[in-house]
Amino acid sequence: MAATGKHLSGQEVAKHNSRDSCWIIVHGNVYDVTEFLDDHPGGSKIILKYAGKDATQEYDPIHPPDAITNNLPPERHLGPVDPETVQKVEVKVTDEEKARQQRVAARPPLDEILNLHDFEAIARQVMPEKAWAYYSSAADDEITNRENHAAYHRIWFRPRVLRNVTKVDWSTTILGHRSSMPVYITATALGKLGHPDGELNLTRAAAKHGVIQMIPTLASCSFDEIVDAARPDQVQFLQLYVNKDRNITKRIVQHAERRGIKGLFITVDAPQLGRREKDMRMKFEAEDPSEVTKSGSDGVDRSQGAARAISSFIDPGLEWADIDWFKSITRMPLILKGVQCWEDALLAYDAGLAGVVLSNHGGRQLDFARSGIEILVEVVSKLGEKRGLKFPNEKFQLYVDGGVRRATDILKAIALGATAVGIGRPFLYAFSSYGLEGVDKALQILHDEFEMNLRLLGAPTIKDVVPEMVDASNISSHGSAIPGDKLYESNYEIMQHARLREVKPKL
Amino acid sequence: MAATGKHLSGQEVAKHNSRDSCWIIVHGNVYDVTEFLDDHPGGSKIILKYAGKDATQEYDPIHPPDAITNNLPPERHLGPVDPETVQKVEVKVTDEEKARQQRVAARPPLDEILNLHDFEAIARQVMPEKAWAYYSSAADDEITNRENHAAYHRIWFRPRVLRNVTKVDWSTTILGHRSSMPVYITATALGKLGHPDGELNLTRAAAKHGVIQMIPTLASCSFDEIVDAARPDQVQFLQLYVNKDRNITKRIVQHAERRGIKGLFITVDAPQLGRREKDMRMKFEAEDPSEVTKSGSDGVDRSQGAARAISSFIDPGLEWADIDWFKSITRMPLILKGVQCWEDALLAYDAGLAGVVLSNHGGRQLDFARSGIEILVEVVSKLGEKRGLKFPNEKFQLYVDGGVRRATDILKAIALGATAVGIGRPFLYAFSSYGLEGVDKALQILHDEFEMNLRLLGAPTIKDVVPEMVDASNISSHGSAIPGDKLYESNYEIMQHARLREVKPKL
Amino acid sequence: MAATGKHLSGQEVAKHNSRDSCWIIVHGNVYDVTEFLDDHPGGSKIILKYAGKDATQEYDPIHPPDAITNNLPPERHLGPVDPETVQKVEVKVTDEEKARQQRVAARPPLDEILNLHDFEAIARQVMPEKAWAYYSSAADDEITNRENHAAYHRIWFRPRVLRNVTKVDWSTTILGHRSSMPVYITATALGKLGHPDGELNLTRAAAKHGVIQMIPTLASCSFDEIVDAARPDQVQFLQLYVNKDRNITKRIVQHAERRGIKGLFITVDAPQLGRREKDMRMKFEAEDPSEVTKSGSDGVDRSQGAARAISSFIDPGLEWADIDWFKSITRMPLILKGVQCWEDALLAYDAGLAGVVLSNHGGRQLDFARSGIEILVEVVSKLGEKRGLKFPNEKFQLYVDGGVRRATDILKAIALGATAVGIGRPFLYAFSSYGLEGVDKALQILHDEFEMNLRLLGAPTIKDVVPEMVDASNISSHGSAIPGDKLYESNYEIMQHARLREVKPKL
Amino acid sequence: MAATGKHLSGQEVAKHNSRDSCWIIVHGNVYDVTEFLDDHPGGSKIILKYAGKDATQEYDPIHPPDAITNNLPPERHLGPVDPETVQKVEVKVTDEEKARQQRVAARPPLDEILNLHDFEAIARQVMPEKAWAYYSSAADDEITNRENHAAYHRIWFRPRVLRNVTKVDWSTTILGHRSSMPVYITATALGKLGHPDGELNLTRAAAKHGVIQMIPTLASCSFDEIVDAARPDQVQFLQLYVNKDRNITKRIVQHAERRGIKGLFITVDAPQLGRREKDMRMKFEAEDPSEVTKSGSDGVDRSQGAARAISSFIDPGLEWADIDWFKSITRMPLILKGVQCWEDALLAYDAGLAGVVLSNHGGRQLDFARSGIEILVEVVSKLGEKRGLKFPNEKFQLYVDGGVRRATDILKAIALGATAVGIGRPFLYAFSSYGLEGVDKALQILHDEFEMNLRLLGAPTIKDVVPEMVDASNISSHGSAIPGDKLYESNYEIMQHARLREVKPKL
Repeated sequence: MAATGKHLSGQEVAKHNSRDSCWIIVHGNVYDVTEFLDDHPGGSKIILKYAGKDATQEYDPIHPPDAITNNLPPERHLGPVDPETVQKVEVKVTDEEKARQQRVAARPPLDEILNLHDFEAIARQVMPEKAWAYYSSAADDEITNRENHAAYHRIWFRPRVLRNVTKVDWSTTILGHRSSMPVYITATALGKLGHPDGELNLTRAAAKHGVIQMIPTLASCSFDEIVDAARPDQVQFLQLYVNKDRNITKRIVQHAERRGIKGLFITVDAPQLGRREKDMRMKFEAEDPSEVTKSGSDGVDRSQGAARAISSFIDPGLEWADIDWFKSITRMPLILKGVQCWEDALLAYDAGLAGVVLSNHGGRQLDFARSGIEILVEVVSKLGEKRGLKFPNEKFQLYVDGGVRRATDILKAIALGATAVGIGRPFLYAFSSYGLEGVDKALQILHDEFEMNLRLLGAPTIKDVVPEMVDASNISSHGSAIPGDKLYESNYEIMQHARLREVKPKL
Repeated sequence: MAATGKHLSGQEVAKHNSRDSCWIIVHGNVYDVTEFLDDHPGGSKIILKYAGKDATQEYDPIHPPDAITNNLPPERHLGPVDPETVQKVEVKVTDEEKARQQRVAARPPLDEILNLHDFEAIARQVMPEKAWAYYSSAADDEITNRENHAAYHRIWFRPRVLRNVTKVDWSTTILGHRSSMPVYITATALGKLGHPDGELNLTRAAAKHGVIQMIPTLASCSFDEIVDAARPDQVQFLQLYVNKDRNITKRIVQHAERRGIKGLFITVDAPQLGRREKDMRMKFEAEDPSEVTKSGSDGVDRSQGAARAISSFIDPGLEWADIDWFKSITRMPLILKGVQCWEDALLAYDAGLAGVVLSNHGGRQLDFARSGIEILVEVVSKLGEKRGLKFPNEKFQLYVDGGVRRATDILKAIALGATAVGIGRPFLYAFSSYGLEGVDKALQILHDEFEMNLRLLGAPTIKDVVPEMVDASNISSHGSAIPGDKLYESNYEIMQHARLREVKPKL
Repeated sequence: MAATGKHLSGQEVAKHNSRDSCWIIVHGNVYDVTEFLDDHPGGSKIILKYAGKDATQEYDPIHPPDAITNNLPPERHLGPVDPETVQKVEVKVTDEEKARQQRVAARPPLDEILNLHDFEAIARQVMPEKAWAYYSSAADDEITNRENHAAYHRIWFRPRVLRNVTKVDWSTTILGHRSSMPVYITATALGKLGHPDGELNLTRAAAKHGVIQMIPTLASCSFDEIVDAARPDQVQFLQLYVNKDRNITKRIVQHAERRGIKGLFITVDAPQLGRREKDMRMKFEAEDPSEVTKSGSDGVDRSQGAARAISSFIDPGLEWADIDWFKSITRMPLILKGVQCWEDALLAYDAGLAGVVLSNHGGRQLDFARSGIEILVEVVSKLGEKRGLKFPNEKFQLYVDGGVRRATDILKAIALGATAVGIGRPFLYAFSSYGLEGVDKALQILHDEFEMNLRLLGAPTIKDVVPEMVDASNISSHGSAIPGDKLYESNYEIMQHARLREVKPKL
Repeated sequence: MAATGKHLSGQEVAKHNSRDSCWIIVHGNVYDVTEFLDDHPGGSKIILKYAGKDATQEYDPIHPPDAITNNLPPERHLGPVDPETVQKVEVKVTDEEKARQQRVAARPPLDEILNLHDFEAIARQVMPEKAWAYYSSAADDEITNRENHAAYHRIWFRPRVLRNVTKVDWSTTILGHRSSMPVYITATALGKLGHPDGELNLTRAAAKHGVIQMIPTLASCSFDEIVDAARPDQVQFLQLYVNKDRNITKRIVQHAERRGIKGLFITVDAPQLGRREKDMRMKFEAEDPSEVTKSGSDGVDRSQGAARAISSFIDPGLEWADIDWFKSITRMPLILKGVQCWEDALLAYDAGLAGVVLSNHGGRQLDFARSGIEILVEVVSKLGEKRGLKFPNEKFQLYVDGGVRRATDILKAIALGATAVGIGRPFLYAFSSYGLEGVDKALQILHDEFEMNLRLLGAPTIKDVVPEMVDASNISSHGSAIPGDKLYESNYEIMQHARLREVKPKL
């Protein structure tokens, strides 16, 4: 049948279902992607699966909304399709998905969530496996990923007593903006993998609790959607992956400034997005083994999971010389996200930037990169020595992210000189398991923990959390796997406690 | 039916069984708690469960005996009830409780208890789950709780030989009072959760063994009951939570002094009682899930377990300036319980106090607080440096508590400068599993271990236990979870021993 | 029936089967132990079990052969019994014992024993549980016991290359006597628990391999049996527990000297034998629970296992002043066994002794005593500093024992200054699993390992094993149990390898 | 029947099937090995199993092809056999072998191999057990074997940001020869145990990827086969075990030089090949237990596994004085393989050698030898101090091998001063699981990892990988097994997460 008016018909689209002519429907519009197939960062195969069909459901959680219009020449935009005529892509509900839905129904009430770990425990069970793999995975052996949390466990408190802590106040300012706690929601990609509202969950909870959200370049929601969802005076930052095409970057930055973004966090630890093997293995498990085998020999690298598919635009050529250009295109404060040694922090300071985030990208980039909290100690010490700086410092702010799960973790960072701490995955897990209410609860837990722990530290305000309150002398003591003494240990008979008498059942 | 004489009838009370009019019976008296419902630290729900009924059984193990009379205005004390007319609250014996009773019956004879760990192993099985959760739980990730014991394992002995140890004597003096060992029974709350006689078990065993008991503010037995149970010349101390209403505190302190209490231990590490998640989780498991869900949305925080329910009176505003006031109201020696760094120990010394307990409250307050034994090393070193003090010191005594399980632990503390060590949970577990006989046995085990280990150390008396006898150089080496090398390790084929031949069964 | 001639009859003896009159038969002689019952270090109960009967089988593995004649006044020696008339003590072969016999039959051939660990793996399975418990147990938490081995794992090699190691020679001299390796068989008690020939297994294997045996005071075989079993020029040492009655000690020492013993090792780390809880628990498991309960209340301490039963004679009053007396009664070189810090090693040197064994008694005495190998490092350093000594030193020899399982362990000790190393338990396990052939094999394994490892170290002789060949800089780094990060870790999804495809079974 | 022409008949050979007259067939030729039986390094038994038969299948993977002709006098070469007349040695396919074949068929496609660990995971399952045991085993407790990898985990990165890494280049030169990566394929023995093409898999993959192969003395393929398989300009090195008969060594070396070998790596860490217990245990499991028992008593040492069988020719007398002789017989650069301390590295430098491999032979020789990467730190420091050298250094090159699994491992070694890193086992596992394609994939993975990690380090070329990019301050911190706190830990109740509600099945 023919197209209705200016609209293409589903039947027409359906004919273009091969490598020779491949049309797909996204958000009610038809695109001819035939010539784009081999350029698709995620490989041609996943597109061909939807050749001639509506790919919206697959497209949405992975791509920024304007990805297809931005990347495909206008002449390949074939126009709208008549929705009535499009055959629904039949989604088979697998047994596994049914089991997952049952687990969703069995979530405990939010009251039983006592700490940020709990969200992860629930999310792991109720998220689609692929989404879990993308969120939770990290580089290589995931050493840095776990070190990020473990490093906090090498820092101990030296609390003070007999200080009046009737009133405690954990609010602070970040880049001059009020925050109800020394925490911001850091940028993480692909929020819709975990929840249909994606990053908007974060925006709304941030508004309610008076914390700042950093909007990711690779959000599932568009930048404007996220800004629109904010309250009038709600402060938002922008995380930026710099595009090889600087015009695109310029457009993004200046648009952000116009929309009222208060800080630009330029990611510098990801000239190329890391290999995350859990994510990659998940892909194989999800696909037809025979297909995978075949595809292995056609020379196309399909093994990089979701991360690679969305990141090929990132410029590995970004360098210090580009900083002046950024200054020329925006007046937003500039912060480098992903600095990992004092030398680069010093360069950033000397370049007149507003601060740095000491971060290893949640362990997703270079494995064996050190934790932000360990780097913080060295940066504070060396920038004090070289430039006489004291931290926290209004003019040059230090942030850390990665591995934070407790207010005590955050207070350790504050004591050591950080202005605030970024938290990412725990909020993803919060909305992946409970939506907006989950993020709300997560922030409430942090409030409760701050109140408790400031009192127990003897620090009525964030300014009272000083270096003498922590012992970080073990921060650079890195253990490693011990080559266990297997023969000796298997001979050793483990000691036993007293035991209950065996109760013999009566006959 | 009508009330008999001045007594209210059970039937009358039973009518007041709602939020609108809520009466309860405790120890044969009727109280109108309607207006108190929202102020109850433990939430209104648990009271409403007993609205119109006898709540004594639930009330007793959690509240100090005079809590209700102290907290409720006199006009709400409605007078005695006629016991004949009160309907018994039917207590259903659950299957779980029946299984527990069987475990109680299967306890091994006391002879088989070889060390303090054994009591815990038995108590964990024979105590009601809720009681176990309250006693055993600690703050956040329970890191400090376990560190308290682990820290002793980083201290090693340097024993001396060829010293005449035919006679060994481990008695000492604490605040000038004789103690048969360098140990006191420290204050722990809610003794009746573990045994009907509660803290009296400790009083009686302390008398028999010549050790000193520190009476807790939050005892299940009343202060006077505990003092009355002591022998005429038995030494007791008092642990004090300072009330927001200083008049109440003054009354308690002066009453204690009149009753012959020999030392006042003011708790300074608990301006707010810690979140103990095991305790909190237990609550959820014990209740009807649907109820919990509902209550989650009424804005009342019910999630804090037993600790919070009984501690809302504690003053977070207590500060150094209050010390002079304490000196003005009592002549008892004043000791701060919960000091955690040398700076505060120095302030305490300069304030003319009699000593400090280096303690983190059994790991139940600030997680990642250091162990008392680690703090001891720093306090001895710094107070020596700053004030020329040597320890142990008669004028300013240092105590530690937390994590002690063996006489060797105690001897390490003594060698490092402590006057004595407080032990808490092990005695709770001792009476929770075996009543008074358990505490008696626990103290006997310590005696046996002291005799043995003083001989093996080459120290005939406590004074001979000197710093050179320990190597504490690893005390501040804090390991942390190692990010394990999972792929490598799972590839590694563990070595095997020689094995027995497989014996083939004959046909 | 009446007694035959001078012999008592079994029937007569059998009448004396109670606490009021208790006779027992040992090695064909009758003893009246009625008045000795309460003095028996192992308690009266075990004797009463054999009242009126032949106790030889129970007596033998625990007591030195002359224990009963030495301890009982001559008038209680009632003379021989007519063996024909003695009713056999019926030994029930339990199911457990039958299972053990099957395991004995299933031992692998000696060829499959590749290292000293293997003997322990087999012995644990083929020994009677009680014997295993006595040999393997150690003090308190058995921390020192395991540390003894673990400490060697903190020492690493710095081998040399391109040295001619065609011929390698690991023989040495100990107190001036030739030894085919820098190893001696150290004293361990109650050899017959593991094998009917007890310590004679060690004597014979020592002869074959040219190593020196140290005869224990608490041997199951008598001293003279062990000396008689030696070859004419075989060197033996004697380990001495000093008796409260110095005359007994004098008699033992002078007898030993007359029999040709070449060195007297006076144990100084055991004024009282340690509590070994595995040993103690074993006892409870082996007995009738109701009996144990009862006995618990009769005031007799029966809880100390085999060790205490045989050691009550040891003098806790032994002191430095006694050393001169030892010099006055013997010309044998005197060595202190159980020195644990440099201060005592220095005293021993200044007292003109021939050497010290740096030992903690196999971890069986004071728990948290440091390992001999750790003490060695401090002793070599401090005696160098204080007296200008170099080690190994002919005039003042240092030995270590405890935890040795490999020739590499021994070579580490040699490199650090030890003259030789004592090995105990591995040889017990060797004869407990394979008798004399086991000890022979154990020594052969050490020979093989010495040959290999001297070559790989680049050291043709023991003298070439120098301090620069080891890195012991971690020797005093004591880790301890880490308070694990339980919530984080249980959330962490462990990485997986590539996996084989699942092979579906064909229908 | 009679021999056909000059050929011996199989029937004739079959008669010589005993210790008295023992002929075997190898590669179609008959050898009289009767007098060689007792000299066979692997014992006589394995030969006697093939007495009178064709031993080729057993001979091939263990022996270099010319072993028999080199070792047997010419008069014992009896000439060719008529293949028609030789009875096939019937090879029983065991159930275990059938199961292995099924596992081979179930290998995942190469696409799913994400890292070098994966090859090992597959190889372990698809290799014959004996071959796996030979490849994977190491000395004694395999501590050094595992330490080799663990040591890399104690080194952390200090990456730089904002450096233009659009183009990254990880090629380098080794002994002046171009290599596409700072990696060479190190020598490993007996390649045919894992794959019929043995070392040729490595030669071919090396050619494709532009890396250098080091040919092992103990290859399963002959030296010339391996050289012949190389492309015309392909660079190969030779690893040399020095023969007691220097003429043989001279012949080998000069032949290698003529064939174009570019570097001679003289192994100096193996005067005797190590005891590898996993390998030895495998042997017992594979044989008839009754036979093993018997053979145990005939005095022949059969317990040394494959390694010993092929290595008896190695000269334990090799020493520094021999270096001049090597210089006199070849102009190839000389490198010592197996140097393990700075003192020997210095001697090598002063002797004018071209470099050293800091290696412990994959942990297969001296256990508790330190890892190459740890030794590297000391060598760079000391040779800088003593001779003013800087590394990497063209004149005196440092290599390390052992434990390498990731490009990050290699980059750590480069940063610390190594010129290149040798990788052995991972390539063996690669061809044992997937043949040539496996090695190809393994090298491709390394290329991918280098590209990624150079970018993330901020190092466009290998020269930019400098010491400041790593923190190796923990390299000499060796943990060891911790004597665990068993009683405390078993009492500790592990914390739990929030849990899903239990879903009750509907009826």
